Amino acid sequence: MRALLYKDAKLTFLADHPIPARKSGEALVRVTLAGICNTDIEIAKGYMEFEGVLGHEFVGVVEEADTAELIGKRVVGEINCACGACETCANGLSRHCPHRTVLGIHGRDGAFADYLALPQANLHAVPDDLADEEAVFVEPLAAAFEILEQVSVSSSDRVAVLGDGKLGLLAAQVVAGAGCDPLLLGKHVSKLRIVYERGGRTAFLKCNTKQDLDIVVDCTGAAAGFNLACDLARPRGTVVLKSTVAGDAQLNLAQVVIDELTIVGSRCGPFRPALEALRKKEVAVKPLITAQYPFAEALEAFERAAVPGTLKILLDMT
Amino acid sequence: MRALLYKDAKLTFLADHPIPARKSGEALVRVTLAGICNTDIEIAKGYMEFEGVLGHEFVGVVEEADTAELIGKRVVGEINCACGACETCANGLSRHCPHRTVLGIHGRDGAFADYLALPQANLHAVPDDLADEEAVFVEPLAAAFEILEQVSVSSSDRVAVLGDGKLGLLAAQVVAGAGCDPLLLGKHVSKLRIVYERGGRTAFLKCNTKQDLDIVVDCTGAAAGFNLACDLARPRGTVVLKSTVAGDAQLNLAQVVIDELTIVGSRCGPFRPALEALRKKEVAVKPLITAQYPFAEALEAFERAAVPGTLKILLDMT
Repeated sequence: MRALLYKDAKLTFLADHPIPARKSGEALVRVTLAGICNTDIEIAKGYMEFEGVLGHEFVGVVEEADTAELIGKRVVGEINCACGACETCANGLSRHCPHRTVLGIHGRDGAFADYLALPQANLHAVPDDLADEEAVFVEPLAAAFEILEQVSVSSSDRVAVLGDGKLGLLAAQVVAGAGCDPLLLGKHVSKLRIVYERGGRTAFLKCNTKQDLDIVVDCTGAAAGFNLACDLARPRGTVVLKSTVAGDAQLNLAQVVIDELTIVGSRCGPFRPALEALRKKEVAVKPLITAQYPFAEALEAFERAAVPGTLKILLDMT
Repeated sequence: MRALLYKDAKLTFLADHPIPARKSGEALVRVTLAGICNTDIEIAKGYMEFEGVLGHEFVGVVEEADTAELIGKRVVGEINCACGACETCANGLSRHCPHRTVLGIHGRDGAFADYLALPQANLHAVPDDLADEEAVFVEPLAAAFEILEQVSVSSSDRVAVLGDGKLGLLAAQVVAGAGCDPLLLGKHVSKLRIVYERGGRTAFLKCNTKQDLDIVVDCTGAAAGFNLACDLARPRGTVVLKSTVAGDAQLNLAQVVIDELTIVGSRCGPFRPALEALRKKEVAVKPLITAQYPFAEALEAFERAAVPGTLKILLDMT
């Protein structure tokens, strides 16, 4: 099959990569559409020390499975594959299972290929009224919904989302859905407009002084975003950290202590509310698509995705 | 009066510093015993950009006050002096008042002097059965009690305290008082022994691997402590950050995001439970005293306090 492989510190497009072996309990999925995430770009710089087929945002059709009724279903899939047997799994934190593999990130070949294998339990059927171009956003949208799993957001909270990249645009919409009226801070008119045109508050991100915000969600993907988020939060406020930045960064934690801030790291989230929000058209995702490339042009697509300012790049696998 | 002044990037012992002016609502306190804190040492390196009389841990006797019955009382004092009028104060966060002065730290001369001035509302009478050598620990002990104000600690929680310095030794005892059985991790036999001899669990701090702890309290006072604390915590675990480290440090926040850790900055705390714990002998503080110097030898005392491994250095002001 075709696959985009990261190995020996370089990306290669292969025409003859072996189809992944489907273990018992797993399904073999034919990928139809995939999305390039910032994490993919970080991995291609050495983050996570992963080698293999990249990609974890996808829509596909089940071709093989233990459960016959799954076959032929259009699905999206949760990316963390837990052991199901350890203490962490028993405590309901299977997304944090220490023995987990993660699709296209850790120990498991990913979605930038004609086929991928995932445990059946990870799959969610895509409703007929959702286009592939919407459903491919379920995974990053679920990551935005994780904010609401971890932090209580009420209508009286003063909230800001930092960063008008893909995750920031999704997070601003998700947090608004919780009843507050978040301010999206970014640098790009064309991106801020996506939220502004849907009635959201937006502003240009600059070196703001203390803003006394109750909750600041850092989606900048940059180390500097963390320091700014801490500046914007009120004493005893909460900073939700969605940015995964590879490597060490120069950070000042004195403010965290002086202002007694709470920092909440936030990663993958629940698929169900993300699918539901897409069905109800509560979150706009199509305006986030910058371009769609045929899979044969995956290397060009990857280069394009890495250009600052680019939003979502999709790979058409059909 | 005598005073230890930090100005123009140097410490000076003065014999003829003016006695602080007592404003309406404030008391003038004759200091009898004071303690040198790591924060004082950081300030003398430029932290907080403070210039003035250092010191914020003290016991003293009220000499002048608006309220006549305060005069002659032996007192300790909360160090944050709030405006009482702003939104932060109205929300019950007066220790975080943006207009505050802080004794010997920000905008207000401190306790390393014959006299200090503090709002009457900041003072707490010292019970007769507490010696000055115990009462002088109320301020740092209150900072340890702040942990319990911010984080729910239950008997089933797996907890570690990192660092066997002054704050770590207090924090380990306070957290143990909440019913859990914390592990104190440090580098010094003589210090660990203080907690060990009172029935606490102790171990040498090394580059431990993942320990799956529910709560890790970082009292190392070093940037490296933060990274270690994150390593020791379980996924979705909590790291309480008590260390104030001046300046930027090389930190890796990827783990905070991947493990969805919660980081809680923690600073000054409530005096009442600290005084109560000292009265009930629930926390041992006298073993933390390394040496007591006459105030005239304050500069030598300060040098001694800065030697790695030193615990509490007291200044006898009588």
